[in-house]
Amino acid sequence: MLYFDHCASTPPHPDVVRTMAEVMQLHYANPSSLHRAGREAEALIERARKQMANLFAVKPEEWVFTSGGTESNQLAIKGAAMRFRSRGNHLITTEVEHPSVYEAFRQLERSGFRVTYLPVDKTGTVSVTDLKRSLTEDTVLVSVMHVNNEVGTVQPIEEIGELLRNYPKTLFHVDGVQSIGKLPVNLKEWGIDLFSGSAHKLRGPKGIGLLYVREGLELEPLFSGGSQERELRAGTPNVAGIVAAAKAVRLAVEGQEERAAAMRALQSRLTGRLSSIPELVLNSCAPLVAPHIVHLSYPGMKPEVIVHQLEELGMLVSTKSACSSKDDKPSRVLLAMGCPRERAASGIRISFGDEHTKADIDALAAALAAAVQKLKPMERSETTTS
Amino acid sequence: MLYFDHCASTPPHPDVVRTMAEVMQLHYANPSSLHRAGREAEALIERARKQMANLFAVKPEEWVFTSGGTESNQLAIKGAAMRFRSRGNHLITTEVEHPSVYEAFRQLERSGFRVTYLPVDKTGTVSVTDLKRSLTEDTVLVSVMHVNNEVGTVQPIEEIGELLRNYPKTLFHVDGVQSIGKLPVNLKEWGIDLFSGSAHKLRGPKGIGLLYVREGLELEPLFSGGSQERELRAGTPNVAGIVAAAKAVRLAVEGQEERAAAMRALQSRLTGRLSSIPELVLNSCAPLVAPHIVHLSYPGMKPEVIVHQLEELGMLVSTKSACSSKDDKPSRVLLAMGCPRERAASGIRISFGDEHTKADIDALAAALAAAVQKLKPMERSETTTS
Ligand SMILES: Cc1ncc(COP(=O)(O)O)c(C=O)c1O
Ligand SMILES: Cc1ncc(COP(=O)(O)O)c(C=O)c1O
Repeated sequence: MLYFDHCASTPPHPDVVRTMAEVMQLHYANPSSLHRAGREAEALIERARKQMANLFAVKPEEWVFTSGGTESNQLAIKGAAMRFRSRGNHLITTEVEHPSVYEAFRQLERSGFRVTYLPVDKTGTVSVTDLKRSLTEDTVLVSVMHVNNEVGTVQPIEEIGELLRNYPKTLFHVDGVQSIGKLPVNLKEWGIDLFSGSAHKLRGPKGIGLLYVREGLELEPLFSGGSQERELRAGTPNVAGIVAAAKAVRLAVEGQEERAAAMRALQSRLTGRLSSIPELVLNSCAPLVAPHIVHLSYPGMKPEVIVHQLEELGMLVSTKSACSSKDDKPSRVLLAMGCPRERAASGIRISFGDEHTKADIDALAAALAAAVQKLKPMERSETTTS
Repeated sequence: MLYFDHCASTPPHPDVVRTMAEVMQLHYANPSSLHRAGREAEALIERARKQMANLFAVKPEEWVFTSGGTESNQLAIKGAAMRFRSRGNHLITTEVEHPSVYEAFRQLERSGFRVTYLPVDKTGTVSVTDLKRSLTEDTVLVSVMHVNNEVGTVQPIEEIGELLRNYPKTLFHVDGVQSIGKLPVNLKEWGIDLFSGSAHKLRGPKGIGLLYVREGLELEPLFSGGSQERELRAGTPNVAGIVAAAKAVRLAVEGQEERAAAMRALQSRLTGRLSSIPELVLNSCAPLVAPHIVHLSYPGMKPEVIVHQLEELGMLVSTKSACSSKDDKPSRVLLAMGCPRERAASGIRISFGDEHTKADIDALAAALAAAVQKLKPMERSETTTS
């Protein structure tokens, strides 16, 4: 069985699993406890925070640990909007965000905020000019994802950060869940105020999110209670998860350039192989695409049928983002990119990691060709009978 | 080193650690993914949910998994208050709740709700008559903890539930973080609508909370996004953590009666031993106290000094709740119980688990006597010099 669904979740690194079990066993005290065991647990968390800080050239206290990418996004967006409500009630995001960002803005809209959803071009990219036109005196927050989780498009984060330097009252949030370890991330240079990550997307444990909160920036917490995590997030911290997550981030970020180059090679190998299958349409177009994603459509075919056919052939791939894979609506992201409905309703996402080889990629391409071969007659008969 | 801080966190059961590592390794797929690996991960979560349901005689879909006791409390309280805001804006809780409940109500107060904080008597117990008097047409939610996390007082949950049956528009939330596995819990019989738990308090992993949400009850989610967990909580679920947590709950609940009796015996042994140390005052009085907690004060002495002195003697105990142990204010709980300020500022919490023996308890009692002996002269000199 070959697993090509790294955007949904990744196999944790063996060192990550080992660390998790070890810390659970040895350092089970509550890091807020005054006694030695508590202080040791706290020291482990602070070491993890320092590791995160070194990897991103920021201060340790600028990293907050949450329960996942979803919580990081929700805390960043709702926390900023609610905290700075008196500053203005206009928010800006894009039409292609992950549901954990998109739905946060929908909730804020219902509670009285005005939200601009920026369109994207046919590559899935937002325009900095559009953004500039949308900014007003009342804009409190701009949230743009770094790498799209369906098609892999990389947004012009650096340019947006440059533009926003002229708007000191407007905060800049970036959902970096799909970018950490895949692309360079320069929080300070790019003028980012809030940046979300998720450990299970980069071979870390599930249940740990990362949130960069620029020094001095206050948010309305989603969880009040104890004074953990700069009072941004109450609750007993998941010590073992945090230590294991920081380890995963270190492994992902330290080897980023090298591994991205290897994945880039696999990616172009795969797109090369796939271009010879006439029924398939590529939805992602490098070089604006992250190195670990290939996205395609088989117009007229239900994507879950292809997923199951590939599964028979030992290949695990995905339709849209995992968390909306169970509705069968066309992809909001592909529609925003201007794809015709039929193509937007038949997307297949292939996402790989550093464990994959050229041979794996060739096997996947062969399986896709075989699946299409097998499904083509079905599709035809469906079309003629309907 | 003997660890007597089970109320703050517990050593995870070896089976729990093993399960955690195994599931992380073998079932890393995203449970929302359509392919086989995703379906297997989902099946594991649903099996855990069914286990929880069987243990508490409720339906599987009535249990929601969160990131901790704090999140469970915040989701229950804010989620109910916000969802039913149009029904009324009065809320009732007590003066002795955990910060993750108390601060939720403070936030809701700031956003326009009226909150009644019920007082307690000198044992820390709320009066059902007081509660009845406070109920109005506008009362949307009553939140009362089952077992107090500082002094161990057990609240009259069954009687409160009985009273609230006459108020069908009023929801009943119980913070059961300190009671699961220590006392019987009868969700349906007691008329509970929302019940919070936390895995790391019962030898499970950190980072997993439990929330019972009665069938049909809707809440305003704190995390919007994907449609996981009845749309009450978006985000990729922590599969390994959930499976390990359900295992810990099973171990805790199945042996509850027997282990509670054993802990009860240790508890009375300890209080017996301590009663011969005249400087110490017991703040918790069985039988209204949970079996795993003994709470005392050494009036006039800073509790962190005692904690550190005991640590030297190889005994780990706690001051107040772990998450507020770093401020040095008198305990809000003890003040509410009418303790004089000096006594409220010198609380020591001893909480044990099923790994403890009579010999451990005797060693702790001896260490406490020795610590008091050593600290007494210091206290006197402090009093005379100040
Ligand atoms: C871009 C993006 N943002 C946020 C998330 C949510 O992260 P998590 O699954 O850790 O809640 C995901 C993945 O589901 C994602 O791909
Ligand atoms: C009574 C009570 N409620 C809630 C909590 C919060 O649980 P968690 O530490 O899992 O966030 C605790 C423990 O800290 C507690 O003792």
